[in-house]
Amino acid sequence: MPKSETGRVEAFSDGVFAVAITLLILTLKVPAEKEISSKVSLWHLLVLQWPSFLAFVTSFITILFIWLNHHMVMRLIHVNNGNFMLINGLLLLFVTLLPFSTAVLAEHLGHSGSKDGIIFYNGSLFSVASMFQIFWKYAIKNERLLGPECDKLEIKRIDKQFKIGFILYSIAFVSSFFVPIISLGISVFLAAYFTAVGIFSKHS
Amino acid sequence: MPKSETGRVEAFSDGVFAVAITLLILTLKVPAEKEISSKVSLWHLLVLQWPSFLAFVTSFITILFIWLNHHMVMRLIHVNNGNFMLINGLLLLFVTLLPFSTAVLAEHLGHSGSKDGIIFYNGSLFSVASMFQIFWKYAIKNERLLGPECDKLEIKRIDKQFKIGFILYSIAFVSSFFVPIISLGISVFLAAYFTAVGIFSKHS
Amino acid sequence: MPKSETGRVEAFSDGVFAVAITLLILTLKVPAEKEISSKVSLWHLLVLQWPSFLAFVTSFITILFIWLNHHMVMRLIHVNNGNFMLINGLLLLFVTLLPFSTAVLAEHLGHSGSKDGIIFYNGSLFSVASMFQIFWKYAIKNERLLGPECDKLEIKRIDKQFKIGFILYSIAFVSSFFVPIISLGISVFLAAYFTAVGIFSKHS
Amino acid sequence: MPKSETGRVEAFSDGVFAVAITLLILTLKVPAEKEISSKVSLWHLLVLQWPSFLAFVTSFITILFIWLNHHMVMRLIHVNNGNFMLINGLLLLFVTLLPFSTAVLAEHLGHSGSKDGIIFYNGSLFSVASMFQIFWKYAIKNERLLGPECDKLEIKRIDKQFKIGFILYSIAFVSSFFVPIISLGISVFLAAYFTAVGIFSKHS
Repeated sequence: MPKSETGRVEAFSDGVFAVAITLLILTLKVPAEKEISSKVSLWHLLVLQWPSFLAFVTSFITILFIWLNHHMVMRLIHVNNGNFMLINGLLLLFVTLLPFSTAVLAEHLGHSGSKDGIIFYNGSLFSVASMFQIFWKYAIKNERLLGPECDKLEIKRIDKQFKIGFILYSIAFVSSFFVPIISLGISVFLAAYFTAVGIFSKHS
Repeated sequence: MPKSETGRVEAFSDGVFAVAITLLILTLKVPAEKEISSKVSLWHLLVLQWPSFLAFVTSFITILFIWLNHHMVMRLIHVNNGNFMLINGLLLLFVTLLPFSTAVLAEHLGHSGSKDGIIFYNGSLFSVASMFQIFWKYAIKNERLLGPECDKLEIKRIDKQFKIGFILYSIAFVSSFFVPIISLGISVFLAAYFTAVGIFSKHS
Repeated sequence: MPKSETGRVEAFSDGVFAVAITLLILTLKVPAEKEISSKVSLWHLLVLQWPSFLAFVTSFITILFIWLNHHMVMRLIHVNNGNFMLINGLLLLFVTLLPFSTAVLAEHLGHSGSKDGIIFYNGSLFSVASMFQIFWKYAIKNERLLGPECDKLEIKRIDKQFKIGFILYSIAFVSSFFVPIISLGISVFLAAYFTAVGIFSKHS
Repeated sequence: MPKSETGRVEAFSDGVFAVAITLLILTLKVPAEKEISSKVSLWHLLVLQWPSFLAFVTSFITILFIWLNHHMVMRLIHVNNGNFMLINGLLLLFVTLLPFSTAVLAEHLGHSGSKDGIIFYNGSLFSVASMFQIFWKYAIKNERLLGPECDKLEIKRIDKQFKIGFILYSIAFVSSFFVPIISLGISVFLAAYFTAVGIFSKHS
């Protein structure tokens, strides 16, 4: 199958990633002019939106790393088929849900719907992580989509790394039913950790 | 005509597909904080939105398969002309309408506007299917846009497959005037069927 | 300058065109469930939105043809420079305004703000047409951006065609101050005419 | 590392730039039909939105120039690594914030939240400028990402130019705490100046 095949899957995926990551900005609400009084400044209203900013930044970085990982996987793939395009499409479906689950979290964090909002948010991160595992496992199973010159040790190393990510998001999701705030802390920490360590610099 | 010509049509089309498929997320409404009470949890409000989730997933998968089909057709095309770009543009117009018709369905499904909403939704799927037929028929008529090495048997097989899809969406549309719920079931089933069978894996 | 330079300008422009053309869908308003009564059906409410549909389709086709023209111009260009990228950016600025002016027209057509809405809409089409003229004239002036093998007769023919389009949009804009409905008719007719004749098929 | 690596970073970045620049249009509010009376025309309501138009145009041109600069930097880069992709992602995060800060400015300019709005807007421009400096400095440090044939004098010239831009946005941000209107004037002036002088034409 010609290279251009993979090329167009990447182009479409990049488009969806780019739109989804930018739509996250709709999580933030512009404070209305009439909400401002002598006691409540615009600054006040913006600061009160901290859950939205936190959710926005966490989701932005999470989608960014999904994209970086997607990018890395596509770099290894030399063959393409319909099932793979379908699995890729379902991965994108869950990515597209993130601007919604982020907005749900931002609206309810710290209010009476806080726990449900965290479960929903961590659940949607877990869905993306699960789908990404399927995407990855399908690609490497019997090396069916990989090029002949692929490095088996590198595949193993990446596989281990993805597994750790998947386990951590599973833990975050499960624990959100019991200790919601801590579970949200895990998701935020993961985004911060990925950023701080820049783990992807080691292999690309 | 140089390859790059087709390339830019694909890039623009991919962009519209990517934006339209991601805008589907606007179908889902973030429940407001004040709607939550001791009797109504956030979970409740999200579950009550099941028509929106159903419509979102159905439309997402439908657009995904239109894109996969579009992708497959473009792979066969080696020539390009203005009329083809125009027909492609009109196809994109109906694709762009899907986030709107999906939101209309989601708002009215199960309420008094249910039947009209289903007719409108199935009508918009039918419009896309019809436009796709025109797009495909124009491309293969006298093999005018196809490369010299194209496989006539493959063309015939794809043609048959597209015809079946078109007939099914026609049936869904027509029956929505008489048995709306069943007709919607057809549209949902088609999306589920495409996903389950992954029919595209057989020829690409 | 390497080809890839032009390539990335095209990619960015295609992105803006694709997002702007898809955002047009926000012109259409989803009728709320509570607006429906025994006397007013969903169908009713959708039909009442005909100005929005008309504005949506007209703007969609207009942006589509601007894109096709943009595409045709970029095909002729082999050199690139900063001023050209800037002029291209300003063209995109006016294209980005179209979803807004379309929504303004849709909201006010047939109501007390009808005339102002038409002036604003035709004014924004005129701005795009003017900016496109500047874009085109800059590209061909002294053949500064054209490839050495460009066909002077083709350039002349395209130039004439663009000039006619520009004059027609100027007429539509000026006449909107005096005969708003007729001037809107010109804009709609132009979109319909471009579609019907598919004039671009003759040279690409 | 193959060229295509840089290619996909550019494609994703172009996508985010294109979506962010087009989402700026959401800053402009469509005046509702019912706001119009015998005393207040549509024209009136549109003109009253001048802060929104000013903010829209300023931000559009600013993002356009960030994109042009991004484009220029990527042209010089021949190597790529994970940290660079991460830094690029954080740059995009701040670019994505611009449609929000632009809408905040537009809502509050000329009202009681004016000063806070200007601080927030200039602060978000300053964040982009700072992140761009980090992006640029990382790329040229020890020439780690630059091609072997890169022109050291050109790098120095570009570096100086970027530094001036960074200093000007720093001044605009700091002065917004003391003389908000003047500081906003600097941001608007910078956008107008970039457009008028087309400084990028000199080196690309």
